[in-house]
Amino acid sequence: MGTLAVVGGGAIGLGVAWRAAEAGWSVTVFDPAIGSGASWVAGGMLAPLSEGWPGEERVLEFGAAALARWPEFAARLDAESGVNVCVADETLTVALDAADAADLRTIADWVGGRAAAGGGALDGVGSDLRVLDRAGVRELEPALARTVRAGLLATAEPAIDNRRLLDGLRKACAAAGVRIRAEAVENLDLDFDQIVLAAGAASARLRPELPVRPVKGEILRLRHRPGATPVPRRVIRARVHGRPVYLVPRGDGIVVGATQYEAGFDTTVTVGGVRDLIADAEAILPGIGEYELSEASAGSRPGSPDNLPLIGRLTGRLVVATGHGRNGMLTTPLTVDAVLGELAGSPLPAARSADPRRFSTPSASDFSSSLGGIR
Amino acid sequence: MGTLAVVGGGAIGLGVAWRAAEAGWSVTVFDPAIGSGASWVAGGMLAPLSEGWPGEERVLEFGAAALARWPEFAARLDAESGVNVCVADETLTVALDAADAADLRTIADWVGGRAAAGGGALDGVGSDLRVLDRAGVRELEPALARTVRAGLLATAEPAIDNRRLLDGLRKACAAAGVRIRAEAVENLDLDFDQIVLAAGAASARLRPELPVRPVKGEILRLRHRPGATPVPRRVIRARVHGRPVYLVPRGDGIVVGATQYEAGFDTTVTVGGVRDLIADAEAILPGIGEYELSEASAGSRPGSPDNLPLIGRLTGRLVVATGHGRNGMLTTPLTVDAVLGELAGSPLPAARSADPRRFSTPSASDFSSSLGGIR
Repeated sequence: MGTLAVVGGGAIGLGVAWRAAEAGWSVTVFDPAIGSGASWVAGGMLAPLSEGWPGEERVLEFGAAALARWPEFAARLDAESGVNVCVADETLTVALDAADAADLRTIADWVGGRAAAGGGALDGVGSDLRVLDRAGVRELEPALARTVRAGLLATAEPAIDNRRLLDGLRKACAAAGVRIRAEAVENLDLDFDQIVLAAGAASARLRPELPVRPVKGEILRLRHRPGATPVPRRVIRARVHGRPVYLVPRGDGIVVGATQYEAGFDTTVTVGGVRDLIADAEAILPGIGEYELSEASAGSRPGSPDNLPLIGRLTGRLVVATGHGRNGMLTTPLTVDAVLGELAGSPLPAARSADPRRFSTPSASDFSSSLGGIR
Repeated sequence: MGTLAVVGGGAIGLGVAWRAAEAGWSVTVFDPAIGSGASWVAGGMLAPLSEGWPGEERVLEFGAAALARWPEFAARLDAESGVNVCVADETLTVALDAADAADLRTIADWVGGRAAAGGGALDGVGSDLRVLDRAGVRELEPALARTVRAGLLATAEPAIDNRRLLDGLRKACAAAGVRIRAEAVENLDLDFDQIVLAAGAASARLRPELPVRPVKGEILRLRHRPGATPVPRRVIRARVHGRPVYLVPRGDGIVVGATQYEAGFDTTVTVGGVRDLIADAEAILPGIGEYELSEASAGSRPGSPDNLPLIGRLTGRLVVATGHGRNGMLTTPLTVDAVLGELAGSPLPAARSADPRRFSTPSASDFSSSLGGIR
């Protein structure tokens, strides 16, 4: 154990800082605006099964392994900080047309097949996906549009409140003695024994070889008003005019997400983004016109080339944890465990598919830096 | 001259305070949140002619008289505060269908006829309204939707920046020695020689006999982004699906207004309101999807039964100025002059149609309070 700098104060950086401090490290988090990045704007869906798709085996396995770690992570955070992050227990993906309905069956079959095949994180999850007809959907969520013709219910996919998560992590960090320095890091030449780079989409500014890019996303936060249609009990996901949309319950409302643009670093909320989010959400839950529009925000997700994050050791002194794309909340517990594993010298097998070096062809400099490292 | 309490720190309250202080009164403005009410949310259109309609002679005359006082008011405010409030010189009302196009001609003919008939505020304004065909509209504002089929150009109807107006009025008040007390007034039993009640929609809480009600309105503020369609040079007004919409230029963007609900005191921004404003604005100016949505706000306009304000003396000690509805910005200069006239004992003839007692049938108590007053 020694001194540890964590660069980036989002959910992952704070999670790493908290657990590393508990493990005995002397931890300092660097971030000019703690908890204000993509973690602040997230929806909080934990839905790796519902998002499964043939050909994306590794993404599914990684997501399922992350989901499996959430209950213990949440319980530990609750015990440490008094913050309970859970806001929904189930996820319901709905179809508005025949093609979408067929897709739901494809997902159920494929994920079920992967689970039945056995092996690792997917063991036993297949039975958690159930295809529903019109009546089945209406019984669960009567406020949804009558145009909904089928659904896919995932009984093991909950949702968390991203802002409560940040709040809980800050409290847990404080209790564990983590120091926070509200400053930007210009380079990684920091005077610490170990450094964790968890700066999300900005990570490539500090390590240009990391293939991480900003993927802009906008969300709306709606607040329930007296007399308006009730907040759904589950996460509701759908595709409207080809655009994915989700409605994640909050205590007093709904988070509606999320647009997706390859727009460089830009967190401007656009008129067109808000227009599309409202239209798509209303197509699923017609009564939300009477909700309050309490917030519209945008964040920069850290996109990776293959939709898997980049987690692992880059040099003898540097561990990275970035590239989580749309799944930063889902994969926080697994990422934290993987980084702690690297710091302890015992990499986590479940995170092997997120090796940050998987995109680079071996070169002389890689070879020498690998030789020169203490790993 | 003596002590004067102004209850309400919107544009009208601050305007009265400024000018009364200059006239020698010792002025105190009471408002728990100066400049945060309907004045803060306004669009700033000064368009009484474009809004003219057969049967609304008194509204037209009052609005035209108010418009005529704006140049001097703005110049005086600029001289006193260094704040220039003008943001556009002209107003263009556009029609998307044949019925709307016919309405534009009706307005032009009727307002032109009233002007030609002569008499007062309308003298000479008729020539300021010009009906345009498709090509004429496109020549003036090429970014407007191709579905626009006609226009009505008002060359003498400018627009002002409501927030700059509030800023300028606060500076002018400070320079004139006006005291500001950031507190709510529970009743009008204040220890001042004269009291001006200018509390907008809240005025009826203090004087329940005033027939003023809150009319909720929502607006959007859009900010131009590089590459987006340019900001129109003029105020653009239209009707879309039966809803009035206006786009008022600002230095770096556009104010889009306004929804209208009879909803009691409620300044919640609703999902449905934002959805409609965006849809209606895009129907007129298709390129605004790329603008930033920088703000959505709501305010309570002070509605009156006949769409004319209530300005005048109620008792020997109390002058009211409220009920300005959607026209608070337009009618500020005339209202200020009318209130100053009442305070000086010489009511303004141009404000006679706004007599606050016009709705009440004479009763014994009115009679006695009139006798008992010092008027």
